[in-house]
Amino acid sequence: MKHLLSTQDLSARNALRLLDVAEEMAAVGEREIKKLPALRGRTVVNLFYEDSTRTRISFEAAAKRLSADVINFAVKGSSVSKGESLKDTAQTLEAMSADAVVIRHPASGAPARLAASGWIDAAVVNAGDGTHEHPTQALLDAFTLRRHRARLGGLPSAGSTLAGLKVLIVGDVLHSRVARSNVWLLTTLGAEVLLAGPPTLLPVGIGSWPCTVFYNLDDALAQRPDAVMMLRLQAERMNAAFFPSTREYSRRWGFDDGRLALLDTMGLDDTVIMHPGPMNRGLEISAAAADSPRSTVLAQVRNGVSVRMAALYLLLSGDPRDDDEPDAHDRTDSPPILIPEGRAS
Amino acid sequence: MKHLLSTQDLSARNALRLLDVAEEMAAVGEREIKKLPALRGRTVVNLFYEDSTRTRISFEAAAKRLSADVINFAVKGSSVSKGESLKDTAQTLEAMSADAVVIRHPASGAPARLAASGWIDAAVVNAGDGTHEHPTQALLDAFTLRRHRARLGGLPSAGSTLAGLKVLIVGDVLHSRVARSNVWLLTTLGAEVLLAGPPTLLPVGIGSWPCTVFYNLDDALAQRPDAVMMLRLQAERMNAAFFPSTREYSRRWGFDDGRLALLDTMGLDDTVIMHPGPMNRGLEISAAAADSPRSTVLAQVRNGVSVRMAALYLLLSGDPRDDDEPDAHDRTDSPPILIPEGRAS
Amino acid sequence: MKHLLSTQDLSARNALRLLDVAEEMAAVGEREIKKLPALRGRTVVNLFYEDSTRTRISFEAAAKRLSADVINFAVKGSSVSKGESLKDTAQTLEAMSADAVVIRHPASGAPARLAASGWIDAAVVNAGDGTHEHPTQALLDAFTLRRHRARLGGLPSAGSTLAGLKVLIVGDVLHSRVARSNVWLLTTLGAEVLLAGPPTLLPVGIGSWPCTVFYNLDDALAQRPDAVMMLRLQAERMNAAFFPSTREYSRRWGFDDGRLALLDTMGLDDTVIMHPGPMNRGLEISAAAADSPRSTVLAQVRNGVSVRMAALYLLLSGDPRDDDEPDAHDRTDSPPILIPEGRAS
Repeated sequence: MKHLLSTQDLSARNALRLLDVAEEMAAVGEREIKKLPALRGRTVVNLFYEDSTRTRISFEAAAKRLSADVINFAVKGSSVSKGESLKDTAQTLEAMSADAVVIRHPASGAPARLAASGWIDAAVVNAGDGTHEHPTQALLDAFTLRRHRARLGGLPSAGSTLAGLKVLIVGDVLHSRVARSNVWLLTTLGAEVLLAGPPTLLPVGIGSWPCTVFYNLDDALAQRPDAVMMLRLQAERMNAAFFPSTREYSRRWGFDDGRLALLDTMGLDDTVIMHPGPMNRGLEISAAAADSPRSTVLAQVRNGVSVRMAALYLLLSGDPRDDDEPDAHDRTDSPPILIPEGRAS
Repeated sequence: MKHLLSTQDLSARNALRLLDVAEEMAAVGEREIKKLPALRGRTVVNLFYEDSTRTRISFEAAAKRLSADVINFAVKGSSVSKGESLKDTAQTLEAMSADAVVIRHPASGAPARLAASGWIDAAVVNAGDGTHEHPTQALLDAFTLRRHRARLGGLPSAGSTLAGLKVLIVGDVLHSRVARSNVWLLTTLGAEVLLAGPPTLLPVGIGSWPCTVFYNLDDALAQRPDAVMMLRLQAERMNAAFFPSTREYSRRWGFDDGRLALLDTMGLDDTVIMHPGPMNRGLEISAAAADSPRSTVLAQVRNGVSVRMAALYLLLSGDPRDDDEPDAHDRTDSPPILIPEGRAS
Repeated sequence: MKHLLSTQDLSARNALRLLDVAEEMAAVGEREIKKLPALRGRTVVNLFYEDSTRTRISFEAAAKRLSADVINFAVKGSSVSKGESLKDTAQTLEAMSADAVVIRHPASGAPARLAASGWIDAAVVNAGDGTHEHPTQALLDAFTLRRHRARLGGLPSAGSTLAGLKVLIVGDVLHSRVARSNVWLLTTLGAEVLLAGPPTLLPVGIGSWPCTVFYNLDDALAQRPDAVMMLRLQAERMNAAFFPSTREYSRRWGFDDGRLALLDTMGLDDTVIMHPGPMNRGLEISAAAADSPRSTVLAQVRNGVSVRMAALYLLLSGDPRDDDEPDAHDRTDSPPILIPEGRAS
């Protein structure tokens, strides 16, 4: 991999490679090795055209745990003229020897444009672009699902796909880059994806997506999903044309206490509830659901750092194994990821 | 100590332990050892719900001097719904493996709530909450007073209390978390505390505080204090009901040139003038007073870094000695604080 | 050098010394040595009273590449009362042991005032003050010109002046600190400087500057300059009294495609086009000109990091050689700049 732009064009091999490296990164944290020297002297720039403190600090923590230098570059919307300024900004970062540019941008496709432009040699990581994709979010979700299944004893985590898992994504799919990235990645990894949401919040071309669509949440839950992923409702996009009220939305599409109880009634003991955060408690998810043992919300945040460490590591460490070498994934030698701080050059 | 939330519940033993470690930290700076490896690989998050660049960079400098990674998380007021969002934010930081959360919050009690919640395993440091407390400010004030007396030759600094010192705190006590933290800490350490301020800017329950209250600054100065601590006047809280004008406030309650001369007249050669900063020069303190040899303003800033290094060190380094072990303070072995950068693992 | 405040009072010897050290710094980047330990444990504060992400991150990257700790201190205009607050802020940074303060300020002379005040022992670096100076910009421009000529085979880069070069600066000279810093530095280094701009955007005292002034861009180009430096037009300063429109400005004073072709027609094969960035493409410079092989825009950005590394290194590393020692520049021993990370103390 040279860039991480979307999950739609991510091969199963590269996705699994990234998840497996993330397992090693997670092990680092668990073994109380706090910091790896892998990216010492490398510079990671967080180029954020939209506010997103959570995503920014997750990447910042990931980069620093790999000993990279981090420069935060928050671009105020008003001071940016869209077109060429991305070019000039990118070239500026390139000239400053940025090794990776983590970009959040309101325009769908901006990261891909940056990567394809030739403006920049740095690795580009899409941290969310418009309504298009948010690939590291989907990767951390897949990582979380894989670990969940491993913990249930079904399969080892490293190396395994998501084949046989049924994941239900619920809510405002229309505006959600999280939903799109998950649809592509989860199906690539073998999971079955169900979508449920009000017709006004589903995209026009959804018929061509590799998913089953439900227009009623309880009908979808009757499919006995292994995971229910609630999307954040962006309240500013709600209007009277869609719903009479947020209460109405919550009743029809929220994961409320009644639906939490329903999982028990249905005997779905192992079904987890996911949310990319930040949550609107009481709107798309009840407080009881968010805090229940079924909730993976905090595991998702934790796994986000491991997955972003893996992405930065694979993009910047010059690891040779990727899709371009057909036999690459079969090699048995691993890169020396786990050398603790202080022992490496 | 697990957290540093207030001085009201800080034991004399723990307070002295922290001040003594701060002496060692200050010695580091003075010996041109610029950086210690003590907290390498640890992550300190500055979670600021109010702007306070001075306090934030003091903690940032302290953490970096101990080789910790620092992540700044400024929360814009408007983007925060008060209640559950502190919980979700805290859990997010926890999931990202924050080792300490330094929190500044407009709501009194927010840091204590965070520490008591079980949402987080990280150490919580109160960097100012509402009108409640600002414990590291009081600790740096106590440190400054102790050093001042040591320099006068009365007592060694390390290990000594503030017994026998008379400290006068002047101004808007009602709104001042600095005043509250100082009242508790200074009296815990044996000092006598006097308060002086206009009745409208003194809290209702002040009668139960362990202090003598004066309604006239010159009457208070007649008590011959060893230190006069001027509080910052928050001009936005001034209104006509309190005073006709800031000039009137300055005349009655400001430490002006006349009062500076008065200290000489009274023979109070060793009395210092303190201010937590930032100063309103010409309002609660005159420029001459702020810049006089009596002023400890810059020493306070300098000591702030040492005290915050000590707090982070004690909270994060797993030092076993605190109040829970009655004989802890009597041990003679010190933790290896002063290993310079490059010699430690 | 103790501070870097302006190019007007920078001696040729110190300027050349800085450019030569910058050559060594650039070599570091080129040799894939990413980080030097030279300023480990030192603290560089970016004190910015105006937004300037590009300049701030260039200094941040430079400081981090020398292993310094960086603290960003953005001062919001409204929260600053101009006069004494600079003093109090400076003293605060001093008390926190800042080793260098990189200051951007809207008031001309603020950095010099800070350096002369005695408020601070730290080295002061002017990162742009009002309409006065922006010395590191001029140094990176001189560095870029020197390297350009070295690449043409005329002279070695290190040690050489700009004697014989003819540099044309075009546009809003009146408001440009970049223009002022370049006029002084380029002439100090032996270059000939031409200025061209509309009479309303040239300063009153320009007659005393060591430059030839043109009121028509094409007349100036007829002088066959080796470099054409286009200034950024600050559109907010444009008004009807100056020009009927930005189109009119672009036609008369922009480096457009016609003028780009003109350089070819004139046989000026080695003439470069410079711009300090950020560019108003289509206004003072056409996209074709900005992206042509003649453009040094990206080299300028890249060189900016090297020059700022050199400035911080010379100011903070205690290098003894400067103007105060007449024979200093003749010494042959170099300071050990190029010890890679991990080998130094």
